[in-house]
Amino acid sequence: MATLKFKDSSLYKQENTAAPIEDYVYSRHVEDFEMQLKGNNNLIGIAVFGIGRAGTIHLTYLLRNPRVKVLYIVEQDKNKWNSIKSYWNVNDEVKFLDFDHADEVYKDKNVRAVIVTSPTKTHEDIVTKALDHDKAVFCEKPIAENIEKTRKCFEKAKQIGQPLLTAFNRRFDAAFSSVKERVGKGDVGHVNVIKTTSRDSPLPGIEYLKVSGGIFHDSAVHNIDTLIWILREYPIKVSVAASANIPEIAEIGDFDTIVILFTFPSGTLGIIDMCRYSNYGYDQRLEVFGFKGMLKVENQQPLQGVESRSENNRVCPIYYSFASRFQNSYVNEMDHFLNVVDGQEKLKVDYQDVLAVSKIASACEEAAKTGKIVEIHWDSKDLPF
Amino acid sequence: MATLKFKDSSLYKQENTAAPIEDYVYSRHVEDFEMQLKGNNNLIGIAVFGIGRAGTIHLTYLLRNPRVKVLYIVEQDKNKWNSIKSYWNVNDEVKFLDFDHADEVYKDKNVRAVIVTSPTKTHEDIVTKALDHDKAVFCEKPIAENIEKTRKCFEKAKQIGQPLLTAFNRRFDAAFSSVKERVGKGDVGHVNVIKTTSRDSPLPGIEYLKVSGGIFHDSAVHNIDTLIWILREYPIKVSVAASANIPEIAEIGDFDTIVILFTFPSGTLGIIDMCRYSNYGYDQRLEVFGFKGMLKVENQQPLQGVESRSENNRVCPIYYSFASRFQNSYVNEMDHFLNVVDGQEKLKVDYQDVLAVSKIASACEEAAKTGKIVEIHWDSKDLPF
Amino acid sequence: MATLKFKDSSLYKQENTAAPIEDYVYSRHVEDFEMQLKGNNNLIGIAVFGIGRAGTIHLTYLLRNPRVKVLYIVEQDKNKWNSIKSYWNVNDEVKFLDFDHADEVYKDKNVRAVIVTSPTKTHEDIVTKALDHDKAVFCEKPIAENIEKTRKCFEKAKQIGQPLLTAFNRRFDAAFSSVKERVGKGDVGHVNVIKTTSRDSPLPGIEYLKVSGGIFHDSAVHNIDTLIWILREYPIKVSVAASANIPEIAEIGDFDTIVILFTFPSGTLGIIDMCRYSNYGYDQRLEVFGFKGMLKVENQQPLQGVESRSENNRVCPIYYSFASRFQNSYVNEMDHFLNVVDGQEKLKVDYQDVLAVSKIASACEEAAKTGKIVEIHWDSKDLPF
Amino acid sequence: MATLKFKDSSLYKQENTAAPIEDYVYSRHVEDFEMQLKGNNNLIGIAVFGIGRAGTIHLTYLLRNPRVKVLYIVEQDKNKWNSIKSYWNVNDEVKFLDFDHADEVYKDKNVRAVIVTSPTKTHEDIVTKALDHDKAVFCEKPIAENIEKTRKCFEKAKQIGQPLLTAFNRRFDAAFSSVKERVGKGDVGHVNVIKTTSRDSPLPGIEYLKVSGGIFHDSAVHNIDTLIWILREYPIKVSVAASANIPEIAEIGDFDTIVILFTFPSGTLGIIDMCRYSNYGYDQRLEVFGFKGMLKVENQQPLQGVESRSENNRVCPIYYSFASRFQNSYVNEMDHFLNVVDGQEKLKVDYQDVLAVSKIASACEEAAKTGKIVEIHWDSKDLPF
Repeated sequence: MATLKFKDSSLYKQENTAAPIEDYVYSRHVEDFEMQLKGNNNLIGIAVFGIGRAGTIHLTYLLRNPRVKVLYIVEQDKNKWNSIKSYWNVNDEVKFLDFDHADEVYKDKNVRAVIVTSPTKTHEDIVTKALDHDKAVFCEKPIAENIEKTRKCFEKAKQIGQPLLTAFNRRFDAAFSSVKERVGKGDVGHVNVIKTTSRDSPLPGIEYLKVSGGIFHDSAVHNIDTLIWILREYPIKVSVAASANIPEIAEIGDFDTIVILFTFPSGTLGIIDMCRYSNYGYDQRLEVFGFKGMLKVENQQPLQGVESRSENNRVCPIYYSFASRFQNSYVNEMDHFLNVVDGQEKLKVDYQDVLAVSKIASACEEAAKTGKIVEIHWDSKDLPF
Repeated sequence: MATLKFKDSSLYKQENTAAPIEDYVYSRHVEDFEMQLKGNNNLIGIAVFGIGRAGTIHLTYLLRNPRVKVLYIVEQDKNKWNSIKSYWNVNDEVKFLDFDHADEVYKDKNVRAVIVTSPTKTHEDIVTKALDHDKAVFCEKPIAENIEKTRKCFEKAKQIGQPLLTAFNRRFDAAFSSVKERVGKGDVGHVNVIKTTSRDSPLPGIEYLKVSGGIFHDSAVHNIDTLIWILREYPIKVSVAASANIPEIAEIGDFDTIVILFTFPSGTLGIIDMCRYSNYGYDQRLEVFGFKGMLKVENQQPLQGVESRSENNRVCPIYYSFASRFQNSYVNEMDHFLNVVDGQEKLKVDYQDVLAVSKIASACEEAAKTGKIVEIHWDSKDLPF
Repeated sequence: MATLKFKDSSLYKQENTAAPIEDYVYSRHVEDFEMQLKGNNNLIGIAVFGIGRAGTIHLTYLLRNPRVKVLYIVEQDKNKWNSIKSYWNVNDEVKFLDFDHADEVYKDKNVRAVIVTSPTKTHEDIVTKALDHDKAVFCEKPIAENIEKTRKCFEKAKQIGQPLLTAFNRRFDAAFSSVKERVGKGDVGHVNVIKTTSRDSPLPGIEYLKVSGGIFHDSAVHNIDTLIWILREYPIKVSVAASANIPEIAEIGDFDTIVILFTFPSGTLGIIDMCRYSNYGYDQRLEVFGFKGMLKVENQQPLQGVESRSENNRVCPIYYSFASRFQNSYVNEMDHFLNVVDGQEKLKVDYQDVLAVSKIASACEEAAKTGKIVEIHWDSKDLPF
Repeated sequence: MATLKFKDSSLYKQENTAAPIEDYVYSRHVEDFEMQLKGNNNLIGIAVFGIGRAGTIHLTYLLRNPRVKVLYIVEQDKNKWNSIKSYWNVNDEVKFLDFDHADEVYKDKNVRAVIVTSPTKTHEDIVTKALDHDKAVFCEKPIAENIEKTRKCFEKAKQIGQPLLTAFNRRFDAAFSSVKERVGKGDVGHVNVIKTTSRDSPLPGIEYLKVSGGIFHDSAVHNIDTLIWILREYPIKVSVAASANIPEIAEIGDFDTIVILFTFPSGTLGIIDMCRYSNYGYDQRLEVFGFKGMLKVENQQPLQGVESRSENNRVCPIYYSFASRFQNSYVNEMDHFLNVVDGQEKLKVDYQDVLAVSKIASACEEAAKTGKIVEIHWDSKDLPF
């Protein structure tokens, strides 16, 4: 009767497997099922500026979010107003404005928080005015066009005691976060090497690239942020190799393919491997290695686990774009922002980190353009750790 | 210069990779971004009956859904009413009722559709009354306690011309659906073998199991439905092997582990391998094999692609429960139902299939209890194909 | 300095990771490097009967094996003799014979062991004569054409005290063996379900199938053996569903696709899912499930870990045939046989198992042909456990 | 009858799936089964110098190889002689010598080829003398202690027309080779980025490291060779970041963790990420990325496809060491060498590549020690392409 000898007491008399912390979807279900109210759950009055790609994602979530009352949608293209209204069944309590009439938003005491997803060049103005009127601010990167202006925004936020969240979406991704947590608990020991691979999909339009600020400030910042967020160190040396394989990108003096090599004070080495285009989807990977082990985030597929075997052996494609790959991050970062506004959580993105990312991106750009290794100097007051 | 010879014209002069159909998250983002309104998008007035586990999932989605106006929440446990109100910031326009006062729902012309997620024994009554009052009905399985009563409900629905949707969630899962579609296009040729593995997690309470109707009608029905949905054939012969490895389950005359072996008219063989408990999470797999290839759905992980390598080599756990694994199905099935109500789609679950599933489950139960192979006879009028 | 705090003492002052038992290739390297002589390492004189597909595999290994001196190659097709000589640089000390002159082999005292890889119908005669002359025997299945003749061979072997090994290759596969070991240690607890999937590649010729003895005795025996080898129980009930999807196979009264469903005395359920052809390679999988966990052997690829991502997302094909997939098993089973001959190991395949496999295959065949569930009765003397 | 409509003509009337080129194990079986003799298959007389770790691997294969007659084993440690004799049943025709009496080997006309697996410092002398006596030479890297002496060896080899093979084992690995081939056919287009990850296991002894020549010349050379072998370009610029996380390694002025960043003339960027120790096994990965796609070699496991699911979700460890991971390469590289000696193949490792690898390693070392970016200049006569 063979394996009968391994039979234990009845499962009903044992402790069975609990839900793993990795199943964050289940945890959220349990919260809902048990209706675990965490804060006072007051309705938060919100204004959204700019309904482009990121704006759409946030607006979709906010309009469906019972914690939130969307009060204003500020969108320059008036032709979109009716589409927005009918597509999302927006009721008449939501007011539509163009940027010229945005003052009404700032003056409205019911607006508790402002979401900035408008074109980059408008960010600083909206952030500043919103803070001036004592509102919490959620802003897609960048906050402002240079580091000094960004610093001023943060100083203002600090001074008036309102949160100013820079939405670095990788920080809110469930997979990236789980690695960050484990590194923070010492799971791999001292980090010898940290690497990200980051290849965009689809190919950004050349018109966008012309005004993007260049691959370092436009795109590498996400990866630089990932490294310093996980390591809690800022690099002191950087070397860059860069190519422009696409002629139109060469023509605008930018690069499409770059590798960044950092040295950190503790001896950790950091590698960022980026490209403006991958024909197999949005390639976003992370690896952290130390003498105690290695942690990885591999690419994710929308149809996880679907395989097709025949003379061709196919697995499903990975996510096509940030909008699908980081879908969970957009939800998580907004939840975080609302929790901060509601007093349930502390802001997770230190303003020093945002400034550091900008400074590091400039150093990378210098390294790429001069072909030399660049040292980066830090004042202890710049460091949040 | 080696691989330079493989350089093509500029990416800006080529057709680049389009979004793959598999990235359904991206497709939904594009719909949102382009605000592709499909129907008239009228607000649909809804009443939800029963806020248990499935009810919570559906209510969460409905309250956040701009297409929907939740008018009534019918929940017997009045103590829950306030929690529901404050947890979801439910406004005062939503009326709370207990089952004794549910008549108000049926009489209210503004209620266009009824969602039935209450205890099984209440289903038939709610479904019947809702249909009598000309409402569309979404009902968690089973519709009624036996096949004859179920048939009557469907006849009523047909007669009055309202949809009655049995919510078999696997039909709405993105991964299962992609396999169904490919089989339907002939990707594997004639199906030689189709198999599902289905192991529950966490262990259902014994009190629940006592009133569940037994493993075949309570649980195997999902797998039986998957087989006939993909094959578009009903089995003509069934053999079952069954065990009760847990003493409490043996005591109530039920089984915890069963294997069902079907023969279909075309020669296809079908295997269902089920267990009431798996200690590694909610194990749901599918495999379809023919001479032209094989398609599989493997288990899915919430933290897809996260690996940990050290002396222990760990991959992330799979989803813990139906509530997380089939999260996407709950959204998809409700969207489908709303599309049906809105006239945008035809009902995807044939009523003959629902009746067939019930009949097949009874045959399986008979096979298990008699220890014999059972033949299943079909009248051509029972077949939707 | 962040993760520096996790830095341990120097790796040279710690115990570092030892070689894992799973790396059997490394273990063998260490044995070689340290020249760990296990037995007296006398040269074993060998005769090989039949240089077909399996014979080629064994001969290749034996000719290269320093423990072995191949004395005779008995091959009916004399045209092959010269090819064999020149392809393997066989020296003149190896004698070539046809079957009519095989008596010389049996009489030669230097022949310590006989390898039987000749056509099935010749097995019993060679086995019997070799045993009569006090030689150890390694025989590809089957030993003889029916169970009674097989039993006689084993009785003779027992009587004269020589090993008679039936070469069930899955028992010697590193992956299958690791699962067998873990089940035997109770890793999954009592086995609720055990399953094998087994699809052949390439398609066997119809001429071969005509004389193969039918899918149950020719092919299912490997899977039946796997189940009883892992479980250490024999099934007491069997149900079979079977199809002949290929007309030529229907014409010879055989099946190409079968599913076998076993019930074992302890309540374990067993599933064998087989097909004579898979167009994606030689599909051989195993799964063992109990309340303490699940163990799997998935398919293996020759180019493990090679992926190709583009608009098509390809992984490498699995092994094409038993000859590549079970390459390691052929080496391991011959090593085991030589170790048994050398007195270093006890025979790993109980003769009762071989007889039981044959009896079970007959029961399966009966179940398939009658369309009924068949009970299998065991006498305690038939059981090795 | 559903999927019956997809039924094709009988499999016996179709062309079925052929063996995929990826199944190199099957191809070899077919060669054996069909006894496809390729050359004249004369016995090749061989002398092996040095029975350490690599020597053991090669000797094991050579002693079992019917194409080869091992004539001499030259091993300084006479205590090993008897162990070698009895462990491999070496017959008396094989002569054992120490290095002081190695002249006998060179003078023996029956020695067609010499295998050099002795300590590094002995290489140049053996290689030179063997070439002087008109023998083919297989040599583990390095050929000589510096680039000039190495060049002289190659010049001698060229002059006398004998092959001198530097055994870079990654070039002979089935997985790495398949990527090399596909890149050469343009599968990824122009290579934008090529990366290797290479972490050793087990930790090399510090005594070995002291005399190893440093991580660049001892270890990075394998990765440098992989890059130039695949790209057929030599880098023109290199930047290195390096750490010594292990104090004993810092003390000897070496590094344990390095990242090398190359720029190639065509714009390709190359990354080598190396460490002297990984606690999860021998980590060897490759990735090649271009605008037409990406190719990867992931780590390989000895027990491929074995999974264990419970509250812990374990996959099998990867190979522990080069001796198991590159087992197939050792066989392939020796087969290649024997084929070259036998006139069946041309030497696959260009001598320019071997010299280039050495030059590049020196540039890397300089970059690491100076902390500067180093340019590498090539004369057209240095290039094999």
